[in-house]
Amino acid sequence: MLKYAMIGGGPGAFVGAVHRNALALNGQAELVAGCFSRDLDKTRATGAELGLDEDRLYATPEELARLEGGDIDFAVVVTSNEAHYPNVKACLENNIHVMCDKPFTHTSAQAGELVRLARERDLLLGVTYTYAGYPMVRQMREMIARGDIGEIRFVNAEYPQGWLAELLEATGHVQAGWRADPARSGGTLSLGDVGSHIEYLVPHVTGLTLTRLAARLDSLVEGRTLDDNGVVLTEYDSGARGVYWYSQAATGTVNGLRLRVFGDKGGLEWFQEDQDHLRFMPLNEPPRILVRGPADLLPGAMPYSHTPAGHPEGWLMAFANIYRAFCDTLITGAVVDFPTGGDGLRGVRFIEACLESSRRDAAWVNMG
Amino acid sequence: MLKYAMIGGGPGAFVGAVHRNALALNGQAELVAGCFSRDLDKTRATGAELGLDEDRLYATPEELARLEGGDIDFAVVVTSNEAHYPNVKACLENNIHVMCDKPFTHTSAQAGELVRLARERDLLLGVTYTYAGYPMVRQMREMIARGDIGEIRFVNAEYPQGWLAELLEATGHVQAGWRADPARSGGTLSLGDVGSHIEYLVPHVTGLTLTRLAARLDSLVEGRTLDDNGVVLTEYDSGARGVYWYSQAATGTVNGLRLRVFGDKGGLEWFQEDQDHLRFMPLNEPPRILVRGPADLLPGAMPYSHTPAGHPEGWLMAFANIYRAFCDTLITGAVVDFPTGGDGLRGVRFIEACLESSRRDAAWVNMG
Amino acid sequence: MLKYAMIGGGPGAFVGAVHRNALALNGQAELVAGCFSRDLDKTRATGAELGLDEDRLYATPEELARLEGGDIDFAVVVTSNEAHYPNVKACLENNIHVMCDKPFTHTSAQAGELVRLARERDLLLGVTYTYAGYPMVRQMREMIARGDIGEIRFVNAEYPQGWLAELLEATGHVQAGWRADPARSGGTLSLGDVGSHIEYLVPHVTGLTLTRLAARLDSLVEGRTLDDNGVVLTEYDSGARGVYWYSQAATGTVNGLRLRVFGDKGGLEWFQEDQDHLRFMPLNEPPRILVRGPADLLPGAMPYSHTPAGHPEGWLMAFANIYRAFCDTLITGAVVDFPTGGDGLRGVRFIEACLESSRRDAAWVNMG
Amino acid sequence: MLKYAMIGGGPGAFVGAVHRNALALNGQAELVAGCFSRDLDKTRATGAELGLDEDRLYATPEELARLEGGDIDFAVVVTSNEAHYPNVKACLENNIHVMCDKPFTHTSAQAGELVRLARERDLLLGVTYTYAGYPMVRQMREMIARGDIGEIRFVNAEYPQGWLAELLEATGHVQAGWRADPARSGGTLSLGDVGSHIEYLVPHVTGLTLTRLAARLDSLVEGRTLDDNGVVLTEYDSGARGVYWYSQAATGTVNGLRLRVFGDKGGLEWFQEDQDHLRFMPLNEPPRILVRGPADLLPGAMPYSHTPAGHPEGWLMAFANIYRAFCDTLITGAVVDFPTGGDGLRGVRFIEACLESSRRDAAWVNMG
Repeated sequence: MLKYAMIGGGPGAFVGAVHRNALALNGQAELVAGCFSRDLDKTRATGAELGLDEDRLYATPEELARLEGGDIDFAVVVTSNEAHYPNVKACLENNIHVMCDKPFTHTSAQAGELVRLARERDLLLGVTYTYAGYPMVRQMREMIARGDIGEIRFVNAEYPQGWLAELLEATGHVQAGWRADPARSGGTLSLGDVGSHIEYLVPHVTGLTLTRLAARLDSLVEGRTLDDNGVVLTEYDSGARGVYWYSQAATGTVNGLRLRVFGDKGGLEWFQEDQDHLRFMPLNEPPRILVRGPADLLPGAMPYSHTPAGHPEGWLMAFANIYRAFCDTLITGAVVDFPTGGDGLRGVRFIEACLESSRRDAAWVNMG
Repeated sequence: MLKYAMIGGGPGAFVGAVHRNALALNGQAELVAGCFSRDLDKTRATGAELGLDEDRLYATPEELARLEGGDIDFAVVVTSNEAHYPNVKACLENNIHVMCDKPFTHTSAQAGELVRLARERDLLLGVTYTYAGYPMVRQMREMIARGDIGEIRFVNAEYPQGWLAELLEATGHVQAGWRADPARSGGTLSLGDVGSHIEYLVPHVTGLTLTRLAARLDSLVEGRTLDDNGVVLTEYDSGARGVYWYSQAATGTVNGLRLRVFGDKGGLEWFQEDQDHLRFMPLNEPPRILVRGPADLLPGAMPYSHTPAGHPEGWLMAFANIYRAFCDTLITGAVVDFPTGGDGLRGVRFIEACLESSRRDAAWVNMG
Repeated sequence: MLKYAMIGGGPGAFVGAVHRNALALNGQAELVAGCFSRDLDKTRATGAELGLDEDRLYATPEELARLEGGDIDFAVVVTSNEAHYPNVKACLENNIHVMCDKPFTHTSAQAGELVRLARERDLLLGVTYTYAGYPMVRQMREMIARGDIGEIRFVNAEYPQGWLAELLEATGHVQAGWRADPARSGGTLSLGDVGSHIEYLVPHVTGLTLTRLAARLDSLVEGRTLDDNGVVLTEYDSGARGVYWYSQAATGTVNGLRLRVFGDKGGLEWFQEDQDHLRFMPLNEPPRILVRGPADLLPGAMPYSHTPAGHPEGWLMAFANIYRAFCDTLITGAVVDFPTGGDGLRGVRFIEACLESSRRDAAWVNMG
Repeated sequence: MLKYAMIGGGPGAFVGAVHRNALALNGQAELVAGCFSRDLDKTRATGAELGLDEDRLYATPEELARLEGGDIDFAVVVTSNEAHYPNVKACLENNIHVMCDKPFTHTSAQAGELVRLARERDLLLGVTYTYAGYPMVRQMREMIARGDIGEIRFVNAEYPQGWLAELLEATGHVQAGWRADPARSGGTLSLGDVGSHIEYLVPHVTGLTLTRLAARLDSLVEGRTLDDNGVVLTEYDSGARGVYWYSQAATGTVNGLRLRVFGDKGGLEWFQEDQDHLRFMPLNEPPRILVRGPADLLPGAMPYSHTPAGHPEGWLMAFANIYRAFCDTLITGAVVDFPTGGDGLRGVRFIEACLESSRRDAAWVNMG
């Protein structure tokens, strides 16, 4: 059993519990230490609740990293965005493998530094782009790699949410508050929060590399200063084209991540709110509804599926699948496929490029 | 019973029969004359099939217009796009009301001239943007006008088709052939064919006026010179924003026109392939599925609905509803709401602006 | 152009206009005479509205039948149920082909007599089971006949509506009133109104013959005497089994006719409110969504489809397809497939058997 | 942290791991002992894999029960059906609380004895009817209890699966093998396996008590002796009626549990494969799609929901919710709502009544 420490995830922090549950579900790693909050009392309260030894509860992430270095297998960083960089750095500098929540860091310089650090010290550095853990997302990737839809021509990826259709950040709403605060979220609201998932998934699923983009970021809700909506025109190395739309002000939508990929031999469509199905549209044939389960999944997607077809596997199991790949890599040494710091760096560069494009009235920006 | 003549719609022309069936369904107008083809023999064959008098079959549209001027109530122009302008002009010059297929003309100069001509002579000039005839589209318009979703913030309109995912125009396919021929279709393939429907519907439904756009037109299928896909960033007079996506190369999609409108009090979503339902998403309440029929429709939408709820009304009945409004205007003199030449002119200007923007690498173009 | 007379379908009668529109849509037959009501003034009002000659408007169906016998090609009987028998009889006795609304007659003795009469005089006698006119229903029939789902094992057919979830017949509601009046509807409310559609469709689509049934008819709404809901256990000649459920008290449902057929090689599912799609579930393969249109339809189903895929064809076009088959038979002499008086007779026997079974506490009743 | 032992769930037993994962997810109980197989070597292999002490691995369930009685808080019985009775009995006789997989026992005499034993010794006895753990099922129950759909008139519950559409039991398939073996499954195949879920859920959700039933059990697949399909007509104490359909031979269906409940003020529909949504159809209003999450759930359903709306919660979390209620009862002493041995007894009586009815050609059988 691996041993891990958690940084962040104290009282009221929803996502910390998700990371812990995902790891519990896999049964590969046990939480042994934590710095759950900047407030040691809160850390102690959470630690007690989770049954941790008091002497493995720390006042600061740096202290945790320094003292736990030799005793834990990895650390999980789930603080709010602005603290990702120093916390991950502290861990890496103490030779601790790290899994970090997304989006990765505020600047690509920070992200680049962390990636370099991990590489130099031969440490695993992961970023939890959850949706890549869904079996049907993996199935898309496998099918595209196998050529099932031929050469990709166009990608339409969208991620509308509606929960910020009101100015919640003005009401004392915690989740909305830090996301809408530029100092804490890093200059974007919804682009970092939901747009970043699109950015990760498209190349993950298609194998395409983004070459340039033109973005218009919108602040649709009166009184909001950061973006709560945006559209990005994209072009890829192969000549393929695309469009991304993300929003947190799309009134009445819930968590509508949808990927549509069109190739010269077929199309694929996946909708996160119907996570266990994948619509496959071969050219000139009726569309087929693939179902998560042994009958329809390719071998590369099967390890992401755990219960029989028709017994829905939800978001937490997608989360767990990301951790399983990370832990398998730790355990076996073999490189298993999970979202890395390099992916996180690419994501931060995407955000920077979108911000630049939008400042210049949706002018094109070339990607590295 | 009104009397009408048809120009175009001869052997093999699918859409001519649709116009005739729509008019037959309404029972308001009777076909009495025609010039169905440039080939008089073909016109005679179609005329015989439809039971028309031989002496009311004409070799040229001009002849028809000149000789039928006093005897018919209106003419229907359903030729391929490049002939819309001269044919409509001939009718108007002979004081004949006209309904013309869409897209309207090749250039805005032509469209403007026709609109002026109709205005000067006090003639009705309609353009068959079919989808405005669907009861649930009308319902959207009525609900938005009433304020059901509050002030509009964002519009996402898309219209993917997949039937041109192969280079059909190289195979002798008739429908693909003229659409892909710049001389006949007017410089765009899919923008005119399907994108134009989005252009018409968005202001029709929302009441918004487009102020500027940035468009990237794509030729996704190898060997194709005109656009078969495109994305348009839009901005409206109220400050609202939007994005349009149209395609005829979206492999595996069928006729996927979808309108999503998000306001500060709610959202609305309509999908053409599920035409009799409308998803209404009031802020902070569960979404409701409105069904075409007396129980759910507002008074302004009810005249577009003819059969009980749950008995699907299809595309042909939407078509018929457009004609019903046109004929009601002719019969009663009262101005009933149907898509006009002015709308057609606006549509041509939109196409021109998109072409210009796309030529300039998706630069912004201001609309009149 | 065929000529026809209509019996019934006067002011306020919804379904008369549907029959006329369906025939108008096909363009094969012209209405020339009518007895639209038992009240001659009402017949004259409707006749004037429809542009008929005054001398071809009749006070009684018998008079119409006697005087129009030689001048019309067929008659359409769309009166309320109790008058089907005498009106159809009058037509047949005057050598007029007849299309009659469903359900056919009150008793199987009446239905048998009409069928005999038509056979003796070599007359066409049709019954408008509308749903058989849908292209995807026809597609089901063709696929099953071809063996696409193998030998059928089980049929689940249901038809829930919700519009009689309140005691509308006590409020003066016309449509509810005659349906709930035993003297006019013939001893059943919903079994005749909607259950009869299931009864027709199952053998039409599957080719199975019903051998016995056990039925429980329910009166779910307080104060109602006739059935507004029912369940029928069925067994067929091949050994296949089934269950039917119909209702008009299923609160919140609309017009939910759904057919599911399971064979040893696959399954098929069709839902009337999504009429243009058919779910085909081959054994051990992902389900496919067939779309109405040339790409997916078998040759035997293609004549039922008129517009391109993705342009919905609704209920009225299904109705028109039934009439097209009837008129094609009249015109060509070749026997085209439409629902006949023999089918209507079988339907009345089914109703009688269900009533008998239900009276005997859902005991089994053998069919002919 | 509670401590539990597991009986059954050794190598190759899918459901044992599900129970363990559900408990791990909740973090309320820790596995400390086991008799995973009748073969001690297999028990040792599983125990080693799970990190258990060797001296807490037992050769027989009786030994486990005798020796662990004072040391564990409860036992989980997940053997195949025929062993439920002796294993649960051994636990109860040693004063161990028990959670047992479903269906409960082979005979109602056995079930009754276990229920009595638990009552006498004041022990908790639960049965894992998983689907009751879904938040939207709980929401249905709460809404109905509050009167949202008024007085219930009709219930349509179905549970089609397709995985036994072939004679898998003749191929050496393990899961199919024991289910189709009368000696091990208890006289029914699919009625016990899937029909039993319907039986539990209907009264759970509606509050109705079944008064009589008429059932026809079918063996649709050639060569199969037990039922793989069945239809049950139901009547309830309030006068409400219903129909159940279950199948494991419905070719092409997956895990299609669907509940529809119709009252005089509205209807509700839930489909297990779209677990996070609930269709609420208030009388004379458009249907609403309720989404799992704080905005739409009633207080009584909220504890079953753990992640934000739109982040699907799957089958395993439903399973975990059942265990959470069981463990909360153990921990707090307050009676929390979970499926009990009494429910299991009622389920066995239902199976016996269906078998009796079916033997008597679907004659009515009175319940209790």
